[in-house]
Amino acid sequence: MSLEKIKSAACFGGEHQVWRHESAATRCGMEFAVFLPPQAKEGKKLPALFWLSGLTCTWANAAEKGGFQRLAAEHGMAVVFPDTSPRGVNLPGEDDAYDFGSGAGFYVNATRAPWDKHYRMLDYVCDELPELVFANFPVDPKRVGVFGHSMGGHGALICALKRPERFRSCSAFAPICAPSQCPWGVKALGGYLGADRETWKEYDACELAAESKFRGEILADQGGADEFLRGQLRPELLRAALDAAGIPLRYREHPGYDHSYWFIASFAAEHFAHHAGILSA
Amino acid sequence: MSLEKIKSAACFGGEHQVWRHESAATRCGMEFAVFLPPQAKEGKKLPALFWLSGLTCTWANAAEKGGFQRLAAEHGMAVVFPDTSPRGVNLPGEDDAYDFGSGAGFYVNATRAPWDKHYRMLDYVCDELPELVFANFPVDPKRVGVFGHSMGGHGALICALKRPERFRSCSAFAPICAPSQCPWGVKALGGYLGADRETWKEYDACELAAESKFRGEILADQGGADEFLRGQLRPELLRAALDAAGIPLRYREHPGYDHSYWFIASFAAEHFAHHAGILSA
Repeated sequence: MSLEKIKSAACFGGEHQVWRHESAATRCGMEFAVFLPPQAKEGKKLPALFWLSGLTCTWANAAEKGGFQRLAAEHGMAVVFPDTSPRGVNLPGEDDAYDFGSGAGFYVNATRAPWDKHYRMLDYVCDELPELVFANFPVDPKRVGVFGHSMGGHGALICALKRPERFRSCSAFAPICAPSQCPWGVKALGGYLGADRETWKEYDACELAAESKFRGEILADQGGADEFLRGQLRPELLRAALDAAGIPLRYREHPGYDHSYWFIASFAAEHFAHHAGILSA
Repeated sequence: MSLEKIKSAACFGGEHQVWRHESAATRCGMEFAVFLPPQAKEGKKLPALFWLSGLTCTWANAAEKGGFQRLAAEHGMAVVFPDTSPRGVNLPGEDDAYDFGSGAGFYVNATRAPWDKHYRMLDYVCDELPELVFANFPVDPKRVGVFGHSMGGHGALICALKRPERFRSCSAFAPICAPSQCPWGVKALGGYLGADRETWKEYDACELAAESKFRGEILADQGGADEFLRGQLRPELLRAALDAAGIPLRYREHPGYDHSYWFIASFAAEHFAHHAGILSA
């Protein structure tokens, strides 16, 4: 497996790195960023968080705007920032919309042609990328968490609910809580999976909760002034589904905050503390 | 004077705002950002820092990547992020180079045509913008500091050295220390001021130090792996000039760090502490 370092910069005593590799899951070159905290130099395996970004993002948005490196250095955690979709795979219409195709993989394994050839982001973020990280970086496979924003908050929820043995801790900022029941999700799931809504349930946190073996507390922060709150995100559906499933949710709504990285940066410290508390136990 | 709020977002309990106004100094519309910490709601006048950015930047680079808002909220300080040049003023060649014209105002008052019509960034950042801020935001004119990066580090140094009654505290990340003696500076000062090097002295920290009434300690951080360190930045010249002038300089060189915002974010906390210590005294 090729793995090529593209960039590296010292940051908060650790190192921010960008890598490129040929992905078997998505059958194309993929970039991701990794922050290794200063503790990586001590030769021990570290806990790690996988950050799943929202629509239109690459690894760069959170890595540059989230303020995560300071917190990761403080807690001695690695952070991995995957891209949000395959790139440049020449599928018709892949760059036509901000909410489908490039930058909008929705963390599903597409089954509908032509997307099924490349858009296998669930396999990528749950299996291929973690295994690549475990093999090449000082990360402890038993202490891994997942968090994300908006589409990536949806991604974090489904990854943790589907794969609790991989992701022991989970949190989300303004997640798309029930993709089967909002315009972004209906477009993405319909496009990647087809019209049969039964198949969508595999990728809807509100559907997955009842059968999930995930038992940690989930932290979710939501801006009260988020323009997508009522029409797209619908946290009330997640609250009900997790409650019914007996999965504890710490849900916080912050008046005045919007959907941006200004919001994410403001509450990132509590997310790192949340994951560190679970992963260090 | 027109002053129009373009954006506003809650951030770390305060508010990140972007404004646009018609500038008398630059004779064009200018954008700037302001972060108001939560303490702004208490009705008292706050200390403020003016951040001067480097080549190619707008207000957004530092506001998005510096991690300053958390620190400003902690210290109860406002932060003002000006743009780095006039924009869209239709001067021939204004967008031809990354290091001259748009995004590269160098914080000078140009005297050479056609630049002299708009490129009056010293007046803008030392007079017009501070006065606009004092008139419209809860900022105490007696507790103002200036800091910046690269070209903006040069800007911070010359603003403080020329205008110590306006800027009581000063710090810089990887500043261009002696623009008369480096390629970036020679191009900019020659282009904006003409060939007479006597006129450049007004904009060179190493020339200004001897006559300056600035007496606070200046903090300067420099990455040891900064590709521009030897050829463009030349901190050794600043150290000698400030030493000869009796102006205390706390200069720190950080092995492995480059010229990027990864470096700036890593040491921003010490800069806020530096300014807060002086401005709260």
